[in-house]
Amino acid sequence: MRNERLEKIRQNMSERGIEQLIIADPDSVFYLAEEWIHPGERMMALYVNMNDKPTLVLNALFPIEKDLGVEVVFYDDTENPIDYLSKVINLNQPLGIDKIWPSKFLINLMEQHPSLKVMNSSVAVDEARMVKTPEEIDLMRKASLINDQAMGELVELIKSADHTELEAGQLLGEIYKKYDTHQFSFDPLICYGKNAAEPHHGSDATPLGDNQSIIIDIGGITNNYASDMTRSFFFGEPSEEYVKIYDLVKAANQAGIDMVKPGVKFSDIDKAARSVIAEAGYGAYFTHRTGHNIGINVHEYPDVSATNDMVVREGMVFSVEPGIYLSGKYGVRIEDLVVVTENGCEVLNKYPKTLRCL
Amino acid sequence: MRNERLEKIRQNMSERGIEQLIIADPDSVFYLAEEWIHPGERMMALYVNMNDKPTLVLNALFPIEKDLGVEVVFYDDTENPIDYLSKVINLNQPLGIDKIWPSKFLINLMEQHPSLKVMNSSVAVDEARMVKTPEEIDLMRKASLINDQAMGELVELIKSADHTELEAGQLLGEIYKKYDTHQFSFDPLICYGKNAAEPHHGSDATPLGDNQSIIIDIGGITNNYASDMTRSFFFGEPSEEYVKIYDLVKAANQAGIDMVKPGVKFSDIDKAARSVIAEAGYGAYFTHRTGHNIGINVHEYPDVSATNDMVVREGMVFSVEPGIYLSGKYGVRIEDLVVVTENGCEVLNKYPKTLRCL
Repeated sequence: MRNERLEKIRQNMSERGIEQLIIADPDSVFYLAEEWIHPGERMMALYVNMNDKPTLVLNALFPIEKDLGVEVVFYDDTENPIDYLSKVINLNQPLGIDKIWPSKFLINLMEQHPSLKVMNSSVAVDEARMVKTPEEIDLMRKASLINDQAMGELVELIKSADHTELEAGQLLGEIYKKYDTHQFSFDPLICYGKNAAEPHHGSDATPLGDNQSIIIDIGGITNNYASDMTRSFFFGEPSEEYVKIYDLVKAANQAGIDMVKPGVKFSDIDKAARSVIAEAGYGAYFTHRTGHNIGINVHEYPDVSATNDMVVREGMVFSVEPGIYLSGKYGVRIEDLVVVTENGCEVLNKYPKTLRCL
Repeated sequence: MRNERLEKIRQNMSERGIEQLIIADPDSVFYLAEEWIHPGERMMALYVNMNDKPTLVLNALFPIEKDLGVEVVFYDDTENPIDYLSKVINLNQPLGIDKIWPSKFLINLMEQHPSLKVMNSSVAVDEARMVKTPEEIDLMRKASLINDQAMGELVELIKSADHTELEAGQLLGEIYKKYDTHQFSFDPLICYGKNAAEPHHGSDATPLGDNQSIIIDIGGITNNYASDMTRSFFFGEPSEEYVKIYDLVKAANQAGIDMVKPGVKFSDIDKAARSVIAEAGYGAYFTHRTGHNIGINVHEYPDVSATNDMVVREGMVFSVEPGIYLSGKYGVRIEDLVVVTENGCEVLNKYPKTLRCL
């Protein structure tokens, strides 16, 4: 158990009047206890209150070999884990619930205890995870350095031979492995041609054709921390319009990054990036938020969006990733990760952003 | 929309007095609508009631290109999807919730509508998915045939050169690809030596040493359906005790399979397998349920356990996978998939179960 992290969570609980909560997200359990437990569909709940040693309720199929600094309560496959959890929590106080906890557990708990008040209290954990320590930032810097390197190698492979989107993703997996990166942060989004005009196109068997746009949105997990970067390319000779939207997205990415420093709002960063695109008349084609925080998981709390007025703090790490998508034609997205520093930010990705035609 | 599947779900709803429910599991959405939608942390809800066309509430980042036979309501990243869902559901009737729906959505819905009654109603969908059609069974037969083939090829590779558990898993990925199987059903559980004594050991950098037990529990997704099989081997010369527990597990697997036919209870199958092991004095070392149903997902409803008295029906597909785990020494698990037929069952896995020393 990392006690300074536990105390940070308890401080957040105290500020919000949360007396007790359960943590179920394997990422958050790892964040606190430095142990990966993936119980699949079986229930896991790490119970935290203000004073007692935390208690982990877990299926006995997942034995804990080291001392995690928590009480461990095991149940087996023939038992209802909620019966065990009910003995751990204080039934007379509101209980904070992990936002990702599957409803089957929550509903069963509420049925057993109809007067128990529940609330989504993940924010107490999310706001602890949100501000990274220098040690975490260093791990993220290294993860992004590997991602820069991998992007370079992948682009050469895409350029040199015919690979479908899916095959290119498999090649990326091989590249990452060389750098001790054995897991993707998310399935690689490698999009050719019209597919690049769909912001969440999943890679498929599309081959790369002449005069097509390419979006490469990739990330890997290195030493338990995620990277995430997007670059856009053109295979062949781009049209004037493509060059125009490329430059707009690049300028929007830079405008977003230039806005980052402690004290600004996330919505200000979104606005800075978005207005570059909107003022050029392409606002309707930038269809998603500007970014998201990142750490152990690729999508962490909170996001960089028009509706998030939270103030940016030193030590936060998030993406700045504007895009323009012209349906049926092409798309451009450029994404960097930034770490908020005392007076501005450090951009973790170094891979060039000048338009490159392959 | 596969209307016969929708009607099956509605019939289950009707039998259980469920007037309306939401489906959130991408597997269930695929089962009904033949479309894969993976919205990640963003909300997806397919609303089904007894009479109206189903309605899908979805983030606009995931455009639907074909007619799914449902109404689609899009929200964007700046909006609260629960506001949209609230307009779709009937607030005056109990609402069935998908068991995997993240608590953040359920709690937000309950906060907006404190008098709304909610219940876990996944069973209406689960019991539809539970009984496979001949078309689905054929797909599962093919998926398991590929798994048999892959097991054979993998064992030869493990035998012929030094590969860590993780490396062997990567080789398996390459083998599957040859057979158009581009996804694992679950991360391969390839366990050497003492690791095989932990039923849920995740593959790591352990190399294979002389005189060690091996458990290989693997499955892939072929044409949207999962396979899952376990075989145990010995690298070197096994002890008398190992041979004894191997034969016990093999006999328990067979006893479980022999029990399968329409009308028996899942708990009877568990008992048949478990009693072989228990009567030989190893009951305490068979620490998990005997099996689980399988289909689009590797773990489907219900399981084959001592506490499940549900009656087995023709068309169900599930695993029979007893094991014995002697901590610090070795482990054995043998798993086959079976399809329930009119008078018994068809075993989908053909890979031999005789003890083989590599």
